[in-house]
Amino acid sequence: MMTTEDIYPSRTGGEATVIPRKDPIVHPRPQSLIGSEGSGESALAGGPLSRAQLDRYEESGYLAFDSILSSDSLREIQTRAQVLREAAVTESLTDPEIIREPGSDEVRSIFAVHENDSVFARQLRAHGLTAIAEQILGGPAYIHQSRINYKPGFVGREFYWHSDFETWHVEDGMPRMRAFSISISLTENRAQNGPVMVIPGSHRHYVSCPGWTPEEHYRTSLRRQELGVPPRSILTRLVEDGGVHSPTGPPGSAILFDCNLMHGSNGNITPFARTNLFVVFNSMENELVAPFSGQPPRPGYIGCRRPQKLG
Amino acid sequence: MMTTEDIYPSRTGGEATVIPRKDPIVHPRPQSLIGSEGSGESALAGGPLSRAQLDRYEESGYLAFDSILSSDSLREIQTRAQVLREAAVTESLTDPEIIREPGSDEVRSIFAVHENDSVFARQLRAHGLTAIAEQILGGPAYIHQSRINYKPGFVGREFYWHSDFETWHVEDGMPRMRAFSISISLTENRAQNGPVMVIPGSHRHYVSCPGWTPEEHYRTSLRRQELGVPPRSILTRLVEDGGVHSPTGPPGSAILFDCNLMHGSNGNITPFARTNLFVVFNSMENELVAPFSGQPPRPGYIGCRRPQKLG
Repeated sequence: MMTTEDIYPSRTGGEATVIPRKDPIVHPRPQSLIGSEGSGESALAGGPLSRAQLDRYEESGYLAFDSILSSDSLREIQTRAQVLREAAVTESLTDPEIIREPGSDEVRSIFAVHENDSVFARQLRAHGLTAIAEQILGGPAYIHQSRINYKPGFVGREFYWHSDFETWHVEDGMPRMRAFSISISLTENRAQNGPVMVIPGSHRHYVSCPGWTPEEHYRTSLRRQELGVPPRSILTRLVEDGGVHSPTGPPGSAILFDCNLMHGSNGNITPFARTNLFVVFNSMENELVAPFSGQPPRPGYIGCRRPQKLG
Repeated sequence: MMTTEDIYPSRTGGEATVIPRKDPIVHPRPQSLIGSEGSGESALAGGPLSRAQLDRYEESGYLAFDSILSSDSLREIQTRAQVLREAAVTESLTDPEIIREPGSDEVRSIFAVHENDSVFARQLRAHGLTAIAEQILGGPAYIHQSRINYKPGFVGREFYWHSDFETWHVEDGMPRMRAFSISISLTENRAQNGPVMVIPGSHRHYVSCPGWTPEEHYRTSLRRQELGVPPRSILTRLVEDGGVHSPTGPPGSAILFDCNLMHGSNGNITPFARTNLFVVFNSMENELVAPFSGQPPRPGYIGCRRPQKLG
């Protein structure tokens, strides 16, 4: 793998610092793809998101949707997520893609469902999502990661504040901020069952975290985040600027957010389970290189190293 | 201490069961106190709560107030709560009334502030609160417990579902359900910083919990509840009936709830600390007896054994 300049260093042994973002948030479509009109506006022509939505996304780093799937698609995905989870429990599956809760056998996440399951493969490559990805990323995209997150009732644990990009950069070798995630609720997202909380505007600041990355960090970090963690002083400053938002909504509602948006979630002692489908789209021009930690890359089910162009 | 029949057995080694409540929720004022009119209605005459509020309290087991204190009282209490906490930290106080967070030195609670601090002593004996207590409890009342709960930002932990009465009965010897609590927010109570969650209607059902009470249980239970915990199947049923409510509001807002209302709170990873003043009023006719666990009673700063009539 080629060597790439590290413009977003983190966990390199220094103090925590804030580095300004060096990449666009909505990426311009290259001239060669725009066609004869050639104006800036035409970069958006035909994309599913409106100018107002793109402006909001630039500003806040996220968009909330009341409903992002047809009711048929939603039902199919909900059923399939349930089937996969039950199989994991009743058959005591030990596939590495299945992550358990710390301190219990409850299923926390199942990774790479777009590769290992035909229902998710079809649904996540559907035209609508691909068109959004191409519009935000300014050209062809692929799925960097997919997973179902099950936050069981009663024992769902918190997930501390983090930027996904920080981890993808350090541990997977994602060179630039040209990716985003969609989290689709498969159960009702309530204020009380540990919904995703975001810090609006935090996507403009890269928090370079203290410490180093130990070998095979992913084996524990997917259960409980302890490295790549921003200090409280910086989180406090980001929250003073942007506040904390936690969109709620019915099954099928969704939140689309920039790869560098600071987010996390509280625990969940309610009986209401919280299940979501999480999928990351990355630009075909932003393929992974060698991880900036200097460690071997994480497995392909966590960060795809053989991109297949969508659409 | 005299022996009293245990009509609410719990942690006596049996299976978890649900026992119907055997006590009123709003307690009638004894005839001797009513005066010449003598009708049922006159029991409420002059009380601060309206008929509609009392009906709602009977039905749901709680009342939420936007503001329960004058702004002067609120400011005085807020300042004093801050002073007490800072003293606990900077002077590394080891008073038993000061409870720390599990796994850190952060202050979780300070007990018995109505006894040990002149500001709280005066504020908590103020006429308004006493009048509410006498109205709900049907006569003279005293303060069974008071405490400031600090839920610090970033590290505030969850507090699992429980009925306060279950613990007060088993560990303190409170014979009957003739007590209630007021939790007054001293900081903003947001959906995201671990507000109190209640299960409306759960106050009508007493959950007799499995297990036994170990000696000196309070030394750990105030940091993390592990006994007197209702099973998930019963919690699920209570929530199916009543849902989960979590009133939010500005500093000075309050929630008043029955001693047997099932409640809990999620953790808090936000920078927003959550501080509340918690005070328990008990009827002078419901004084503590020997704990039903058969163990020695907990210290007086947790459950008052020398009642002083309010008003």
